[in-house]
Formats: sequence, C-alpha cells, structure tokens
Amino acid sequence: MRRKVYLKLSTLEDALKTLLGKFAESPLATEKAPLDQAFGRTLAENASAVLSSPAFHGAAMDGVALAAADTFGASERRPKTFTIGQTAHWVNTGQPLPGGCDAVVMVENIVSEKAGDGSETVSLEKAAFPWQHVRKMGEDLVAAESVLPPGTIIGAYEMGALAAAGVLSPLVFARPRVVIIPSGSELAPLAELTPEILASGAKLPEFNSLILSALVREAGGEPEVWPIVPDEPDQIRAVLLKAAQSPAHLVVVNAGSSAGSRDFTAEIIAELGELLVHGVSIMPGKPTAIGEIGGKPVLGIPGYPVSAVVAFEEFGQRLLARWQSREKTEKPTALALPFQALPSKPGMEEILRVKLGRVDDNLIAVPLARGAGTVSSLSRADGLIRAPAPVEGLPADVPAKVSLIRSPREIDGALLAIGSHDNTLDLLDGLLRKQHPGCRLTSAHVGSLGGLMALKAGRCHLAGTHLLGPDGTYNRAAISEYLPGLPVKLVRLVDREQGLIVAPGNPLELEGLRDLTRAGITFINRQRGSGTRVLLDWELARLGLDKNAISGYEDEEYTHTGVAAAVAGGRASAGLGVKAAALALGLDFLPIGVEEYDLAIPERFWDDSRIQSLLEVIRGKGGHCPWRL
Amino acid sequence: MRRKVYLKLSTLEDALKTLLGKFAESPLATEKAPLDQAFGRTLAENASAVLSSPAFHGAAMDGVALAAADTFGASERRPKTFTIGQTAHWVNTGQPLPGGCDAVVMVENIVSEKAGDGSETVSLEKAAFPWQHVRKMGEDLVAAESVLPPGTIIGAYEMGALAAAGVLSPLVFARPRVVIIPSGSELAPLAELTPEILASGAKLPEFNSLILSALVREAGGEPEVWPIVPDEPDQIRAVLLKAAQSPAHLVVVNAGSSAGSRDFTAEIIAELGELLVHGVSIMPGKPTAIGEIGGKPVLGIPGYPVSAVVAFEEFGQRLLARWQSREKTEKPTALALPFQALPSKPGMEEILRVKLGRVDDNLIAVPLARGAGTVSSLSRADGLIRAPAPVEGLPADVPAKVSLIRSPREIDGALLAIGSHDNTLDLLDGLLRKQHPGCRLTSAHVGSLGGLMALKAGRCHLAGTHLLGPDGTYNRAAISEYLPGLPVKLVRLVDREQGLIVAPGNPLELEGLRDLTRAGITFINRQRGSGTRVLLDWELARLGLDKNAISGYEDEEYTHTGVAAAVAGGRASAGLGVKAAALALGLDFLPIGVEEYDLAIPERFWDDSRIQSLLEVIRGKGGHCPWRL
Repeated sequence: MRRKVYLKLSTLEDALKTLLGKFAESPLATEKAPLDQAFGRTLAENASAVLSSPAFHGAAMDGVALAAADTFGASERRPKTFTIGQTAHWVNTGQPLPGGCDAVVMVENIVSEKAGDGSETVSLEKAAFPWQHVRKMGEDLVAAESVLPPGTIIGAYEMGALAAAGVLSPLVFARPRVVIIPSGSELAPLAELTPEILASGAKLPEFNSLILSALVREAGGEPEVWPIVPDEPDQIRAVLLKAAQSPAHLVVVNAGSSAGSRDFTAEIIAELGELLVHGVSIMPGKPTAIGEIGGKPVLGIPGYPVSAVVAFEEFGQRLLARWQSREKTEKPTALALPFQALPSKPGMEEILRVKLGRVDDNLIAVPLARGAGTVSSLSRADGLIRAPAPVEGLPADVPAKVSLIRSPREIDGALLAIGSHDNTLDLLDGLLRKQHPGCRLTSAHVGSLGGLMALKAGRCHLAGTHLLGPDGTYNRAAISEYLPGLPVKLVRLVDREQGLIVAPGNPLELEGLRDLTRAGITFINRQRGSGTRVLLDWELARLGLDKNAISGYEDEEYTHTGVAAAVAGGRASAGLGVKAAALALGLDFLPIGVEEYDLAIPERFWDDSRIQSLLEVIRGKGGHCPWRL
Repeated sequence: MRRKVYLKLSTLEDALKTLLGKFAESPLATEKAPLDQAFGRTLAENASAVLSSPAFHGAAMDGVALAAADTFGASERRPKTFTIGQTAHWVNTGQPLPGGCDAVVMVENIVSEKAGDGSETVSLEKAAFPWQHVRKMGEDLVAAESVLPPGTIIGAYEMGALAAAGVLSPLVFARPRVVIIPSGSELAPLAELTPEILASGAKLPEFNSLILSALVREAGGEPEVWPIVPDEPDQIRAVLLKAAQSPAHLVVVNAGSSAGSRDFTAEIIAELGELLVHGVSIMPGKPTAIGEIGGKPVLGIPGYPVSAVVAFEEFGQRLLARWQSREKTEKPTALALPFQALPSKPGMEEILRVKLGRVDDNLIAVPLARGAGTVSSLSRADGLIRAPAPVEGLPADVPAKVSLIRSPREIDGALLAIGSHDNTLDLLDGLLRKQHPGCRLTSAHVGSLGGLMALKAGRCHLAGTHLLGPDGTYNRAAISEYLPGLPVKLVRLVDREQGLIVAPGNPLELEGLRDLTRAGITFINRQRGSGTRVLLDWELARLGLDKNAISGYEDEEYTHTGVAAAVAGGRASAGLGVKAAALALGLDFLPIGVEEYDLAIPERFWDDSRIQSLLEVIRGKGGHCPWRL
C-alpha cells in the first residue's frame, strides 16, 4: 500500500504569502448595487459624494427663519416685529431656509400674534446672530469629498453615509463564487442518512460543506456545493477540470488533501496545474493543499471539521477578503491565563479552542478537547489561543493572547466552573441565560480534585465536587485538606445516584462491583481525581476487592456521558457513573449509592451578582440552602 | 403656535427597563429550519444531540484495524501476521472499525504482502494497545447532551456542531418582523429625487428607512418599509392602527417623536394606546418615544440620522435581541485618551463618535462632528465614547471607555494625523489601503497649530501643517517655536495654490484681498490656528488692510471644503482656500500664492513600518524627499 508524502511542510506565514502572492489580482467583477439591495456588499471603489449634505442651508431648530441683519437692535424694551410670509417664515427642523434668510430663532424666544385678517406677526426681544440654529450646506459632506474607501462593507452606518452623499447605486464587488466539492467514498448527503445508517458507520454524513458554505457567506461570498465525489482519481480529475472551467472564482475540495493512500487531491492538482503548498505546520489544519488549475486557485481542505474550519479561515477567507480590497475580519484579542500549563506539539503552530471566564482580574482560559474531529470544541469555545511553533506549550503563569469568539461582555457575564461534571450544570446554564440575561455558566470538566486545585489557584469561580472523605461524608474533608485558608461555602446542587452503567437489559447479568473481576468483563473507569473514581476505590476497599483484577481499570473517561457512551458502544461491559447518564443513552443502571454533589464557592465571590443569580436559579429549582463549612 | 412638551426625560437605563419589562414576553413563533437554510438564524430552544458523534468507533489514522488482544506478544523477533479481510482490515481515517476490532495500527508500522492468489497479509512487530488510534463513539458529543443553548446565532461553527449532533432541522425563532413608517411632509423617496430637487430643498430625501432596515437585519429581523406618511394626525393615526393590526412584531415611526409643533407621534400613541416614555436623556437620541398600541410595541424614533441610529440600537435592537433569547451583540471596548479635553452637555448621556489611533502605547480618540445630522460621523467613526450624564465632559488625561467599531487590528494599522486639512490625505489613505493592506491613514482636522500641539502632547503620529513664519518660509519657524526638544522630520506633501474662492464666473468681480473690504462683500474665514488664517493675516498686514473692515472675518469654517461649500451655498461672497476645493464644487479661484504643506513626523516614529509605508506611497506619487530640520 503506497503512502504519499507531503511536498514539504510550509509555515502558515509562508503558505499565506504564496497564496496571496500568486492570486494577488482580484478576479471579481464590479457592479452597481441599488442601496436597498446593498446591505452587506463591499465597496469596489472610493465612494465620493455626489451631493453636498445638507444640499442647502436648513433649520436646525423649530422656529422662524429670518435675516439676522434685520434683527440687529432688538431688545426687551424695543422688540422687533416681523410679518410671517414676508420678513419671517415658520420653519421646522430640517427644512430649507427661505431665500434671504440666514438665521433661525427658536419658537421659545418668539411672541406670535394673529391679526383679524389672518395675517400673523412675530416679535423678538433679542437680535439673532447670522447662521444661528442653521445647519449649513455641506456641514456633513461636501460634494466630491471621499465618503468611504474601497473594501468597506456596507452596514447600517455606511448605508446612511452613502444615501446622504447621494451615492444611490455604489459600485460594489460581485460576490466571489466558491465551488465546494465534497469528496470521499464513505460520505453520503446528510439528508439521506437515517440514524440507523449513521450508527452503523456504513456511510458518514457529509456536513463540512454546510460549515464551509457558512464560512464563505461570512466572507461575503456565494457558495455552490457540488455533489459528493468518491475517492476515484478519474472522477476527481474530471470534477476539478469542470470546476476550473466554471465561472467560480475559487475551488475548494474537501478532503483528500492529506497524505493517505486514498488522498488524491494534491497529486491531481499537480497533474492538472501547479501544486504550490502541500502540508502546513498548523494543528489542526496540517493536511492543506494549495494550487492552481488553469490559473484558478484550488484549495484542498482537510476532512476533519475543525481542521477544515481552520484551513478555510486561514486561506479561503483571507483570499476572499483580499480580493474585496480588505483584510479578513479579525476577532478581537485579549490576554488570558491558562488554567493550568498546556502542552503543545513542537514544530507545529497549534490552535487551541478554549472556554473563558474572568476570575478576579484575570481572564482564565480552559482548553476544550483538541481532536480535529471534535466540532463541539468550536461551538463551545469562547476563544482561540495560538501556541506558536517554536514554543512547546503554554506555561500556566504567562498570559497568552486569545482571539475572542464571544464578546467581552458575554465573557464577563460568565461564571467559570471547573471541576466534576454533572448534567445539571448544562441545565443551570440554560436557566441562568433565560432568567438572568447576560449571565451564563461555563464549565470545564477536570474532576472534583482538579476543580479544587483550580479554586486554590484562583482560576475559577466555583467547582463542582463530590469527594467522599475518610469519614464517609462528602466534600468537607477534601476542602479542609486542599483549601486551607480559603473560606469557601458549599451549596448542595444534587443528590446523585451513582451506580454501574451496563448494556440495555444487563445481558451479562452483573449484580454489583464484585462482578467486575469476572473473566470477560471489561470496565471503563473515570480519571484520577474524579469523585466517581474516589467512590469506586472507596467501595472496592470496603468490599476488599483488588483493582488490578478489574480489566479496564486503567481505561479512563473524563465525564459520565463518556463512560455511558463507552458502554453503549460496546467498548466496556460496565462503568461507574450517575443514573442520568445511563438513562440518556437508554442503558441499564445498577445503583451503588447516593452521593452529594456540591458547588464549592469561595466566600469572596459570594456577593458577586452572577453568583447571586446562580443561587436564585438553584433555589428556584428546589436546591438546598447553602451552608458554611 | 403650540409647542408640545416631553412627558419627562427618562434616563436611558429607566427607558430600557420600561421597554424590556413591558414587552418581556417574546411574541416570536418558532419554526424548524433545515440546516442548509439555517445560517444566521437563532436557536429557540436548547439543541440536544440526536446522535452521538462519532456514532461508532472509527479509525483516527489510516492503517489496519484489528483486535488489540490478538497483537499481544508481537515483537521484532516474533512479528505477528494477520490476514486482510479476516483478522485485520484496511481502514482510512474516519471509517468505522469492523466488528471485533478495537485498535488501529498505522500504515507506517506495517509490512504488507500480497500472495499469488490475491490474498493479502500484514505483519507487525509491536503489540497494539486497546483503543489506540481510535476515535471513540461519543468522543465529540453524546446523544441527549446539550449542544447549544437557546439564543445562539447559527454561524459556521454552530452549523458543524448541529450537523454532527444530528440536529438537521433545529428549532429557530421566526425572524422578528418590523414595520418601518417614514413620516414627514418634507420627505420624498430617495429614488424619486433629482440632484436639482435636493439642492432646492423642496423635498428632503428619505433614507433613514434604509439605515433602520439595515439595523433590523443586523438584529436578525425582517424590515418592511411602508410608504412615507405626511405630518397629518389623521394619516398618522390611520397608519399606526393599521400597523398595530398587521402581523408585524414591532412598529417604528420615524420621526415626529420630538416636541415640535408638527410632531404627532407621541400624542397619537398616547391616544391609541399607552405612551410609556417620551424623551430620553441621551444625545443624540433624545426625542425618542416608546409606547404600545393594542399590546404591540411602537417606537417613535428621532429624525436626525445619527439620533435614529442611536435610538434604534439602544431600544429596537435590544428588544429584538431579548425576544430571541439573547443580548444585543456588544461592540468590544478599550480605553482611549481624548486628544484634548472634550466638553459635553450636563444632564445628558452623550454618545461621541471618535476616530482612533494607537500612538506610542496610548489609544487616542479624536471626536468627529457632533451634530445629530452628520451621518458621516458614523461611517467615519472608529469607535463610540459615552460621556455619562453626571459628568461634564471628558478630561484630556483620563482614559475613557470606547466601544470599538473597527477591529483592534485595523485600529493598530492606522496612522493618526491631526492637523491641517488637505484632500491629499484622503487620497493617501486610499493608496495606503491598496498598496499596504492593513495600513491606513486616519485624519482629524484641527488646523496646523492644533496639529503641532497634538504632536507635542504625543497624541498623533503626524501633523499636516502649512504655517507661514515671520521669515516668509513655511513650518520651520513654527516647529522650532512650538516643539522645542522634539526631534521632527518634515516631509513636503504638496505645494498648494491658495487663493480666493468665489462664485462661478466671479459675478462680484473680486480681484484680490483688497476687495474684501468692499461694501456688500461677505467673507468666510478659517478657524484660528489654521495655516490659511495665518496666511490671510500675514497678507492683510502686508497689504495694510484692517481685518475689522472685512464683513464675516469672525465667521469660521474648519476645512477648505467647508469654506468652498459656504461660498457655493451663498453664505459668503468669498473665502480663502486651496484651488482643489474650489474646483471640486465648480467655483472660481483667484490665486494669492503658493504655500508649502508639510507632514511633520516625530523622529521616534520614523522607522515605524506604517510611516515607512506612507513614505513609500508619497515617493511613488512624486512627493519630495524628506529633509531634517
């Protein structure tokens, strides 16, 4: 079986330079867009004012317009009188001054009188300055003046400026057209798949084209998704030729750009045109190919969804932006402390997806799952941290630059919970968002002990914990031991039934922990430091069982749902976890005992409005009253 | 003439609380949106995973899948051999593991051999761990797990998470429908107006509905613009009743919400329903009315475009966001130093539009024109500063919180020029953006002397200046006098012809500055500290003319185009300014002399890449070489 090789890994910077250099010339046509259809379009030239705005001298107040010179000498003792329609004219704000007028006197400063014949006079007791309360012609914009530069995206503000300047059909770029070709023999259109087919793995759902289409739209382009092409060189060759000859400006093949035996994208680009880059030293995103066919850029985008997003953001979106005379919209950045030291792969620029929370004065970053396949790590992320190639990982005490996916306000509204996982945390988050807009709960799962360590280091607002102490009670002993000197309140969130999670119908007829040592039974464990692991060890000791006799004791998951999924997928015969996780996946559950899941909250955060909101939600849902350690 | 009164000015906070309290219940229906049509929609409920993702154990590498237990004992000396199709199976990344397999061995670590009968075997020299290179079922998402909370806007990342979780038609909110009713007898649809009608002021262009539509779209809603209604109570009453009975969720009347004699919006709302708020203590945005008719919210939005934007952002967008279970998208914020102390109106919360530049380590804010009518102040703004009501203005040395309209990266790419105005600065900006993507020139016009003062205070990167010295040469004397101890380089940007700007055909037959003292001739001057003003005074002294004999000497404009517009609009018979400004408006020009317009650049910025880019552009356009003072 032949394995291909990457040309040579390029750095992100070099690959970008190659791409933007080769395709520097914008292939986009321009067109006039009437303003009512111009929202979101991009200006293709400097828009210059056709008219001055205002196009005339206008009233800036409601009142009478008159010639200032006529008012000179008016005083309380000698008011001056004007006849409406002759020497003075009622005007409303915005109306043009009648000929001969150069000032407006506010309605409050006027005494008006109607005569029997219907004529009206006004008198004033103070002279007016020339041009008082007048919006002068050209005050906003003067004809021929530049209003907006090319590359400007037309939003609400720009709409107003263009209209005021009389630019009723600005010249905009035609939307860049992007052909997206999903490729892979294992793929089938999302709509054609049933849950059964999906669960069997006979076909994989093709949904990257949805993600890529959204990224194209975000960059101002129009996506066109072509049918799925199997991993057959002839078919890939044919479709690439067809795409190169189509009116599209950019061709994206997803995937087949890696160096596997059935990855043909790179070599077919080389065969039909020129392969410029194959392999980029970023993670995720490494298996990216960049080339051209018939002068048209072709991007080979990796298949894992997160890699696809990173690669298209870095290359596709940047190219589309450049063609539209602007830079890719950058996310705002901030400095964040990693909640603990984060390793990264040397020689690769790694893009970490993180959750963020502001604890005391520090922005704290907690990384999400790193796998390039974990789409959830993108939708759950609050920000992205780039660990540059020459650096091996991020130390815990050096702030790292983070690109913000959520607004600073959203992040500041978040309570950061680090610790043990319980599904109630997700429910709480939903209720918080609903009952206290602007407030939310973001949680990272590192086990009970990890949560207490994070509390100690000031890296979270609260920690979910269920640690069984040597005295048989929950949490109090652990807090005394691990958080000396840190005043903490404990809030009971739930009493949880822990037990063995087994396949539906319990086919192996397990009855309890003793059965875990039976031949043929495999176990899935939770990670060290998790409350469930502590409970297991405590129960094993109580029963006098040897953990080394349990097959799978060393196989670890980080969440209850992870354990349940391992059982549901047949990876293990049983795991220890909460009942809710078993029920969610339709599994059977053998109770072991009830444990106390508490939220540990440092007293210094107690009066924080977000914590008070959280407590309100918990009390509203029948949660216990907090008690002091 | 009757003048109405505001109910009582509400603070922004109170007005918002009233609005969001009264209309807390979301009137929006929900609907299922297929994913390929869901881009930009908002989730109406917690989206829970239908499937686990992956839905099966899959290969995380290309290679062979097998049962790890079968490999135990394999070594270099005793390789183990497997038959493809029986005990081992070729798999590509992402493919499901065949039944009985629980590990993948990478293709690099395998020796494969084909026999004559077509059968294939692979051998390996090292045992595999169970679950090595396997993406386990549910690694990304476990069925029933919460994927995304309500209120989430579906972008590229969310699209991926929903598809991976099998949520193919998420429940989203119906787009809020907003009826926009332009009102005002003076208004006509933009498309129906010719430049002649506009210049006459007979009709004003109605374009706020374009701005408001864009703001509605930004907030996820669908705008519906109704025909313009004249300021006739009966017609306004009729259209408001019709709108209240329509399927729209929110009704916006623009304008008529002020307290002028022809402003009927507020009283008609009170008559047909309930008027909750009339007048808010923000500037711009004060004449806002909030009420309900038939239980439907009605917003009376002020007529000045900037006021309309502020009022709709604060009230309309927030209400639409709340109905969609989220908060209005907030702009990121930063701290900026005002370039000089900025006064504001006591008792009102003022929203200042500012330009921004990063000078040394400070973000510097320069306010744009404040008039509520100056739409250009929005499109030109880089950020917004709120001067809170209890504070009178912003001191020069206290950083103020600024909401950023441009990305920090765009702002950091900007050179901030404060000083004299020349149209070449706009041209330079356009060329910079084009030739050096990411780089731009942002300029604020405060006259030559104001620019030198800003340089001295470290509040800008460069200053455009044309100050005639007592020795008859330009700029050198002023720099020596005002910037002692600050090493500065001067770059000649243009030699400018200054002269009298007069009406087309010079109907008053002016010949030079002497004629300015003629009876009936009015002059428009530039502000104190501007180079043009210095030139005028210098020339008047040279000619022995008395400035007090010039009518209009005290009437000031801040730019050359402002002077030209004053002449074009008949406000003055003549003004002193550059030829380019006269030509742009089709005016006549009587040359007075040639002056040197230089850019003063502190030496400490000389090697800054943005300054170097600027110099490249200037040299490319035939600019002079820089010389050192």
